[in-house]
Amino acid sequence: MVNTLPRSPLAPASFPDLPVIEGVRFASVAAGVRYTGRTDVMLAVLAPGTTVAGVFTRSATRAAPVLDCQDKIGQAADEGAAILVNSGNANAFTGRHGAKSVAEICKAVADATGLPTTRVFSASTGVIGEPLPHERITDRIAELNATLDAGGIKAAAEAIMTTDTFAKGAGRQVVIDGQTVSIAGIAKGSGMIAPDMATMLVYIFTDAVVDQPRLQTLLADLTDRTFNCITVDSDTSTSDSLMLCATGASQVDVTQNAAFAAALHDVMLDLAHQVVRDGEGASKFVEIRVTGAANTDDAKVHGLSIANSPLVKTAIAGEDPNWGRIVMAIGKSGASADRDRLNIRFGDILVAENGWVSPDYREEAAAEYMKRQDLVISVDLGLGDGQATVWTCDLTHGYIDINADYRS
Amino acid sequence: MVNTLPRSPLAPASFPDLPVIEGVRFASVAAGVRYTGRTDVMLAVLAPGTTVAGVFTRSATRAAPVLDCQDKIGQAADEGAAILVNSGNANAFTGRHGAKSVAEICKAVADATGLPTTRVFSASTGVIGEPLPHERITDRIAELNATLDAGGIKAAAEAIMTTDTFAKGAGRQVVIDGQTVSIAGIAKGSGMIAPDMATMLVYIFTDAVVDQPRLQTLLADLTDRTFNCITVDSDTSTSDSLMLCATGASQVDVTQNAAFAAALHDVMLDLAHQVVRDGEGASKFVEIRVTGAANTDDAKVHGLSIANSPLVKTAIAGEDPNWGRIVMAIGKSGASADRDRLNIRFGDILVAENGWVSPDYREEAAAEYMKRQDLVISVDLGLGDGQATVWTCDLTHGYIDINADYRS
Repeated sequence: MVNTLPRSPLAPASFPDLPVIEGVRFASVAAGVRYTGRTDVMLAVLAPGTTVAGVFTRSATRAAPVLDCQDKIGQAADEGAAILVNSGNANAFTGRHGAKSVAEICKAVADATGLPTTRVFSASTGVIGEPLPHERITDRIAELNATLDAGGIKAAAEAIMTTDTFAKGAGRQVVIDGQTVSIAGIAKGSGMIAPDMATMLVYIFTDAVVDQPRLQTLLADLTDRTFNCITVDSDTSTSDSLMLCATGASQVDVTQNAAFAAALHDVMLDLAHQVVRDGEGASKFVEIRVTGAANTDDAKVHGLSIANSPLVKTAIAGEDPNWGRIVMAIGKSGASADRDRLNIRFGDILVAENGWVSPDYREEAAAEYMKRQDLVISVDLGLGDGQATVWTCDLTHGYIDINADYRS
Repeated sequence: MVNTLPRSPLAPASFPDLPVIEGVRFASVAAGVRYTGRTDVMLAVLAPGTTVAGVFTRSATRAAPVLDCQDKIGQAADEGAAILVNSGNANAFTGRHGAKSVAEICKAVADATGLPTTRVFSASTGVIGEPLPHERITDRIAELNATLDAGGIKAAAEAIMTTDTFAKGAGRQVVIDGQTVSIAGIAKGSGMIAPDMATMLVYIFTDAVVDQPRLQTLLADLTDRTFNCITVDSDTSTSDSLMLCATGASQVDVTQNAAFAAALHDVMLDLAHQVVRDGEGASKFVEIRVTGAANTDDAKVHGLSIANSPLVKTAIAGEDPNWGRIVMAIGKSGASADRDRLNIRFGDILVAENGWVSPDYREEAAAEYMKRQDLVISVDLGLGDGQATVWTCDLTHGYIDINADYRS
């Protein structure tokens, strides 16, 4: 049923050509966990010496595989690592059965790959509260392990989709000291997308050399400016996981390297934007730039208040330059604002200033602007130096169709 | 256009018979502020000796009449008071023009009624950011003042509607020391409804005797358990105002009287429920009872997280007992929760316990329950004594229709 959704109008033209990351191999299979006629399990196996960093949902009702990954992240190892992900069932709120499924899956992967279970990470995404039929997965591990392929990343991206309407990938290469370092990542996510965590399932691979603590710090810092700045529907998943694996195969140490950090940021932001562009029912991609806030936290609070407001999102869906709803969302956010210092723009069009509509504002111009597919809404609070940018989509009949009518 | 909306399926059969409150008279008129073919301005005039309490939106972008009312509330007076409300235009984010409109309206009412301007309260509801054509209102004040009628409360309730599909009223009478004390209130509200303030426009009248500071305290306490516990769409208006006026005509002092407080609570809760029952696009009325939370604040945070979750609200619209989304909403709320102590019920049906679906749970029974129009979802967190109840409605195509397609 998931496959019947039309491709998002905001989708990129095609899946990008991603650089092959030496030290990572992928396999995927149609195990029939829940969906039929499509792949739903992917395995990634990482070469010895790979460092693994991860950030996970802060939900108090985290899924079993999330808790297991959190236990394992940061354990130093030379053995390499593996990541096993299934779609169709989130193995969330499944009590003791959930933990048992994770243990069975990790043991099967460990047995097949020769890795210790402490280096096998798993994730599950899909419906919440139903027992995971883990035998359907463990029965296929040997086959997965036998078909690992360094070029299998696109198929892996497809296998982890749920209500996604397109597979999401992003890659960058950066030359450091004459050596090329590559980054390639995949993501899934379309609904139950809200910030303040690592959003959805994201796996990023690089052949750079970085030790685990520094990789973890870098990942956390960049997550705050990328995945934690997007929202589709303000709802936070119980399964959100973002992992970054550095195989070291390039032999280039990127510790403290700004060019590498910038390239990694670009990959993460690209994937985050793709998640928004596949937001359930989305017809518009919206960037909300907040400046002049009392501080950075306030800027983000205002940005997310606008981005999560159902009235703002429905106005955007209706191509209505209803800036009064932006004022409303700023007012309700709880962060500092002075009505009479607000300055609001749609694109380059100055809409409101000095606590009222701008004298030069022409609604026809704004209405014309709102017809675009990609929109920028800028708000200056006139209070200080705090700024933040967040990204969201509109709220349409498509969102109701997808979420009122069936379970993903 | 507002009048073209069909009456909510959750609406009461008819407007209730409200007790006449001695010392209050109403008038309403079709002034053409924005709408045509319907009344849009109401005036209430209160007898000398009336005490007036009020609670207002905490939005940082409050409308001009809200700021004016906040200035005036609590000023003791023997002169009586007046309340003038228009629909069609919120006079919000209208800069200096907004404050001027409020002053002009209050002066016109003061001139006609003989009251000082400090005792004239006003409110405006409707579109944000457009200048209020206040002359259309001030031109009709003399006519309003000449047609005041103690029986005009229903017409007043109709005049303040915007996207409301039915007029909202509630009344109670309570006998204290052999004397009857009456309470009658009206409300408007349908969208941009979220808690943490007095919600929308609400006017309640009683012939009880209560001094202003005690009336204010009582109102604030009861608001926290009624209007501040409802949500339609998590969006907070810039104009929310709730005023309670005690004329004293019954000569019954109700200070510290529990029966009066209970009756007032009932009127407020009745009106609050009517606002939810007229939630934009609503097809289900949902009570969410949270118990066993670490404390009262946590209980309310969890309740509102569930009530505001688009995924929970769309599942309810689809009559899907998708309790996994309840788990998700609890997990994301930020308040304390232990996944494995959660207990969730739909009506009397135990759905989840001990971190997983209940062994006795049958989805068919829950699916049958979800077809009802009025639903109760109960969550016990198993942590402490904190409890709270909140009320909301579902999220349907109707909400998108109303908010994406035109401005209210």
